Amino acid sequence: MIIGVPKEIKVEEHRVGLVPSGVQELTQAGHKVLVEHAAGAGVGFSDPDYINAGATVVPTANEVFAQADMVVKVKEPQPHECAKLRSGQILFTYLHLAAAKNITDGLLQSGCTAIAYETIEDAQGRLPLLAPMSEVAGRMAIQAGAFCLQRTSQGKGVLLAGVPGVPRAKVLVIGGGVVGENAAQIALGMGAGVTIVDKSLPRLKQLDARFNGQVQTLYSTQQGIADAVAESDLVVGAVLLPGAAAPKLVTETMVMSMEP
Amino acid sequence: MIIGVPKEIKVEEHRVGLVPSGVQELTQAGHKVLVEHAAGAGVGFSDPDYINAGATVVPTANEVFAQADMVVKVKEPQPHECAKLRSGQILFTYLHLAAAKNITDGLLQSGCTAIAYETIEDAQGRLPLLAPMSEVAGRMAIQAGAFCLQRTSQGKGVLLAGVPGVPRAKVLVIGGGVVGENAAQIALGMGAGVTIVDKSLPRLKQLDARFNGQVQTLYSTQQGIADAVAESDLVVGAVLLPGAAAPKLVTETMVMSMEP
Amino acid sequence: MIIGVPKEIKVEEHRVGLVPSGVQELTQAGHKVLVEHAAGAGVGFSDPDYINAGATVVPTANEVFAQADMVVKVKEPQPHECAKLRSGQILFTYLHLAAAKNITDGLLQSGCTAIAYETIEDAQGRLPLLAPMSEVAGRMAIQAGAFCLQRTSQGKGVLLAGVPGVPRAKVLVIGGGVVGENAAQIALGMGAGVTIVDKSLPRLKQLDARFNGQVQTLYSTQQGIADAVAESDLVVGAVLLPGAAAPKLVTETMVMSMEP
Amino acid sequence: MIIGVPKEIKVEEHRVGLVPSGVQELTQAGHKVLVEHAAGAGVGFSDPDYINAGATVVPTANEVFAQADMVVKVKEPQPHECAKLRSGQILFTYLHLAAAKNITDGLLQSGCTAIAYETIEDAQGRLPLLAPMSEVAGRMAIQAGAFCLQRTSQGKGVLLAGVPGVPRAKVLVIGGGVVGENAAQIALGMGAGVTIVDKSLPRLKQLDARFNGQVQTLYSTQQGIADAVAESDLVVGAVLLPGAAAPKLVTETMVMSMEP
Amino acid sequence: MIIGVPKEIKVEEHRVGLVPSGVQELTQAGHKVLVEHAAGAGVGFSDPDYINAGATVVPTANEVFAQADMVVKVKEPQPHECAKLRSGQILFTYLHLAAAKNITDGLLQSGCTAIAYETIEDAQGRLPLLAPMSEVAGRMAIQAGAFCLQRTSQGKGVLLAGVPGVPRAKVLVIGGGVVGENAAQIALGMGAGVTIVDKSLPRLKQLDARFNGQVQTLYSTQQGIADAVAESDLVVGAVLLPGAAAPKLVTETMVMSMEP
Amino acid sequence: MIIGVPKEIKVEEHRVGLVPSGVQELTQAGHKVLVEHAAGAGVGFSDPDYINAGATVVPTANEVFAQADMVVKVKEPQPHECAKLRSGQILFTYLHLAAAKNITDGLLQSGCTAIAYETIEDAQGRLPLLAPMSEVAGRMAIQAGAFCLQRTSQGKGVLLAGVPGVPRAKVLVIGGGVVGENAAQIALGMGAGVTIVDKSLPRLKQLDARFNGQVQTLYSTQQGIADAVAESDLVVGAVLLPGAAAPKLVTETMVMSMEP
Repeated sequence: MIIGVPKEIKVEEHRVGLVPSGVQELTQAGHKVLVEHAAGAGVGFSDPDYINAGATVVPTANEVFAQADMVVKVKEPQPHECAKLRSGQILFTYLHLAAAKNITDGLLQSGCTAIAYETIEDAQGRLPLLAPMSEVAGRMAIQAGAFCLQRTSQGKGVLLAGVPGVPRAKVLVIGGGVVGENAAQIALGMGAGVTIVDKSLPRLKQLDARFNGQVQTLYSTQQGIADAVAESDLVVGAVLLPGAAAPKLVTETMVMSMEP
Repeated sequence: MIIGVPKEIKVEEHRVGLVPSGVQELTQAGHKVLVEHAAGAGVGFSDPDYINAGATVVPTANEVFAQADMVVKVKEPQPHECAKLRSGQILFTYLHLAAAKNITDGLLQSGCTAIAYETIEDAQGRLPLLAPMSEVAGRMAIQAGAFCLQRTSQGKGVLLAGVPGVPRAKVLVIGGGVVGENAAQIALGMGAGVTIVDKSLPRLKQLDARFNGQVQTLYSTQQGIADAVAESDLVVGAVLLPGAAAPKLVTETMVMSMEP
Repeated sequence: MIIGVPKEIKVEEHRVGLVPSGVQELTQAGHKVLVEHAAGAGVGFSDPDYINAGATVVPTANEVFAQADMVVKVKEPQPHECAKLRSGQILFTYLHLAAAKNITDGLLQSGCTAIAYETIEDAQGRLPLLAPMSEVAGRMAIQAGAFCLQRTSQGKGVLLAGVPGVPRAKVLVIGGGVVGENAAQIALGMGAGVTIVDKSLPRLKQLDARFNGQVQTLYSTQQGIADAVAESDLVVGAVLLPGAAAPKLVTETMVMSMEP
Repeated sequence: MIIGVPKEIKVEEHRVGLVPSGVQELTQAGHKVLVEHAAGAGVGFSDPDYINAGATVVPTANEVFAQADMVVKVKEPQPHECAKLRSGQILFTYLHLAAAKNITDGLLQSGCTAIAYETIEDAQGRLPLLAPMSEVAGRMAIQAGAFCLQRTSQGKGVLLAGVPGVPRAKVLVIGGGVVGENAAQIALGMGAGVTIVDKSLPRLKQLDARFNGQVQTLYSTQQGIADAVAESDLVVGAVLLPGAAAPKLVTETMVMSMEP
Repeated sequence: MIIGVPKEIKVEEHRVGLVPSGVQELTQAGHKVLVEHAAGAGVGFSDPDYINAGATVVPTANEVFAQADMVVKVKEPQPHECAKLRSGQILFTYLHLAAAKNITDGLLQSGCTAIAYETIEDAQGRLPLLAPMSEVAGRMAIQAGAFCLQRTSQGKGVLLAGVPGVPRAKVLVIGGGVVGENAAQIALGMGAGVTIVDKSLPRLKQLDARFNGQVQTLYSTQQGIADAVAESDLVVGAVLLPGAAAPKLVTETMVMSMEP
Repeated sequence: MIIGVPKEIKVEEHRVGLVPSGVQELTQAGHKVLVEHAAGAGVGFSDPDYINAGATVVPTANEVFAQADMVVKVKEPQPHECAKLRSGQILFTYLHLAAAKNITDGLLQSGCTAIAYETIEDAQGRLPLLAPMSEVAGRMAIQAGAFCLQRTSQGKGVLLAGVPGVPRAKVLVIGGGVVGENAAQIALGMGAGVTIVDKSLPRLKQLDARFNGQVQTLYSTQQGIADAVAESDLVVGAVLLPGAAAPKLVTETMVMSMEP
């Protein structure tokens, strides 16, 4: 199969659909990989890096879209890109179409087969291609929240760990899925007191064992959340709304530093 | 030296001044050890256990006090025992004389040299013979407190660890010495949220590192303690009042289960 | 649906079928909730707490049973209560009917649909409404056992953690299910040496990983259990006999403090 | 003694010399405490908070300086403040005079007795009033470094913990004192691979035990540091130069995020 | 059923198919167990140990094979043993037939029903009778590797933990199954820096949580493995090749100590 | 000062008195360093490595001893070396003279000032130059003991960690100093059950806290040691006999694997 990797053109998107080690896996498995010139520049990979891994570097996106049987990207295709897709071609990328009617229409008109990373389920119903994003989001959320709590960021001037003699901050994580588990792990590591809320007791039991009882778990009720929010310094929203618009890493989780 | 071990006669005291392995250390070092018949019965050691360890078992306390150069006991001598002590003899035991004028008088009249375990300091000013009692007291305090919190003990019906979905109990330990450190260790192990209060920041820093940040430390101020007590389920008083009356293991630490 | 919560009348039962936060979830979902006067008094909730959560408080159990489509309780209905149930009505509570023929007969005569919490299975065959009881039982078992080992409770006078220089106690947990895992967690936290016995090697492997090798696991054979019991200070029976009579929290697990 | 607390006037300094709980300790010990109007506003304490704690609130700094036997501040006195100090008066604050000749002159001219927090040593030669600042600095350093490593901050786009399948970042902490120990603790908690460099083997041994071998320790040589810096993602300078200029919390530790 | 346990005759095999506690389980369940004289000698069990457990000890393997309905062994039958098997008889042992054509032929000719431990799957597709061998292999691999790294074994003279001031060794575990997880656990416990490579991100996520982030996880690519091997001191191959020849405990995992 | 580093000539000694990074520290501090040709070959450093670090490489030991003001070595001087030492020269190395009368005589005759690494004390009375050797010895002891317990080494065939379902090994460490603490750390990490014996209760308390109660501590009595040895699989002797002969790394600690 000919696999094509165009340079991402969405604003503020520096990533690339395949890194050289991924290209190597595919070319050694007998595929041909076309990479657009400078496609990996945003994450530090040069054209020679791709060539060494077995790719053919082509000057523009046009060659990629024209020749590839499957196009591998990061973000949903922009209008310019939709116009280059064609019937019989596979598009493999994050799509998050719920909030993007014009792109949905563009894909339909192209006649391509578009497969969204975020909808692929494994045998256990998990979302293996979304999970890494959720792990990053959960871990970043606490880092972002700690930054927001600094006085220089107009926060309360609270350090998550406190220091000896000064109490630690209280972090509330609403939702015990992948985002919540990763947020709790970093918050605990930074020294905060952490509470996770979830609607599933078996999941709370799992988290209680996984964190060896160091994270407090709270069954989700409206009153329980209201009380917990009121006494928290930092609240992380980590509930997946299925079909929601494309998350940006940190804003997917709503980090809310409570008013002083 | 002839070392004597009478059976303890104070009410509710089951312990004994020397266990057989201690006797063995002394006899092998060339001392003679006299043990009163049944002295070790309360902790499960028989006369033959002592004889095997090298002791001579004598029928009554009279022989012990009459022959011994040093009498090794657990508790302060009772009036009957004071009468048997004599000038030139060493008494080695817990004394806690501050609240026991009649025994102080009895000791003075006997002319013996009485050395109190609880006053012996090592080169660093620590109290090595009091420390084990404080360790027991601190560890027992949480066990006793957990029992007091049970509904069957007229407590709040709160489990220290909670269970997944139900918050854990809050334990406040006032005083970060040996008692407090040991109480915090067991409370943490039982799953409670633990705060230690102390007047020394360097000590709080030590405890923060020793518990790897899992125990919250609070610098001692009246207001801080008042606030912390108000939101705690269990309060352990772990402050040593130097020269205080003899502690009983648990009541040395004031365990207070807060009203529901 | 009209949901009714009568006050529990079984001896020594202080709990209540729904707490106010549960009532709030149901009323906001469009249900009507009837609560008997003082139903929550045993766990600290007043009638106004329920009214604020959206419930209607009625003076006696008669109104609850007469109007409710579903009755939510804690314990199996007592004979007086069976007489108030009727065909078409749902009863949702712990039943443990195996040892209660008269209540079984009463339920059959009432014609109600009785659903026992302890028999509800999730998709993995777990018992999600029994698990929290087992968690409490396992955690309480060690607390109860530690109390039984105190000399003041006619125990061996052994502290689970020992103290520095004095060996810790040995705790044997027979059965590695929910009760056993929770018992092991608290026993480990209190400083004991812990061994768990189970008939499933995959489960022992899970527990070995969950406790990071700090709990010793033993494959269940009669000889292995006999040897382990003989050298233990505390034995916790944590095997579920399916269909057994209603467990009381601690006596469900047989806590046995070994003779001195 | 009359103790005075003026409002801090140095730019960007929001803290206050005494919080209300500190005032309460002093007033109950028999001292009189004067607090300038709005002195605690920057950290959330109102005049009534101070009055409730026993302080007398006065309208301007002039009253504080005129009446106080001891002035308690946070930062070195600004020129306006030096002019208000007088002979026989005690000034108790951070001074960091090494880089502040004009303030040194001002203090000398005032004739006051100025005691710098950062120079007070306890019996072990530690700096108990500097330590809390170093703890904050060390803990903040990693938080600041994690922020600097974000792509949105023009960093390498590296997450300290990585995610499963993606390696974690390497953090090098140069100096194993209070700052370094606290930086290492947070870096470890955030999931980084951490190396601490120090010139004292006994100190490295202490840190190895305190972090249970999870932090790598490296004896300080020029070559060793050069090699370690070259392969690190984040370098924290945590060496105290005695007598150095006043540290700002984060810049005291030189946080250097390595170029991509 | 009559169950027979012959003495193992393969070179260097000291184990036995059933230990006395296993015999006891079977005899109490109503089976008859025949054990060859001295069958358990290699692991410290005498004939009387087996007799006490309910077995009948017979003088030679001939009686065992002649009478048993099921023969329980450790290793694949040697040619002498194949000749004693017969149609209708069950053989239960490790077989690893892929590399043993003559034994496969022997088994076919015997007409027995041979069940290989290593092929038995539970409901989740796991291999419960192979797992314990893999656990031993993984744990031994690190012990063997540490030995190989000693200078006295012509290794690099590297200690896995290093010592304070000297960096720890880097261990790479290729494959995150049972062998790899157990190898990682011991390597981490011995103080090494550990990286696990696997092709499954969900498995790496599990291992990241199980080791609480202390083991680095790396998604498997050829380039990634090449780079990781190049900077490792010890490499453990822990990939199961299904149908491979019989593993010996340590050589199943390829332990490779890198050249100095 | 001129500092000389001869090649070690004692049998089986591969180490070298200074590695290149140490040479660099000294040359940059203004000293001149002479290194014998091939002195570092046994630990992988070439002559150019030393030259790059600022050393002058000389062809034989004669130049080193003739010109150096201070000779830095690893092991006690052999007779050939003693003959090259002279009055006014400093020798800095491990000496362990107690068992080496002829070397003691040789040093006396040379008139040099010999300083033994193992006798240098810091302000707290610790032995900072002996400690790293003790750390290596303690960590190696368990690795060596684990190897001795393998059946292939004629051991009991016991794995320190056991596996799930099979009990772990019991390791007894006699002596809670640097060797013992390090041995306990590795034994614990390898999954054994560990007991440390010591004569100092404060030291046992320190170890109890440092290992967070996971290592059992036992006060040293003859009876206690006898009982503990009898039930251990591996015994590590970790008592320093002051003035004892030169330890070799592992044999300094007496590792004794108990008979099957």
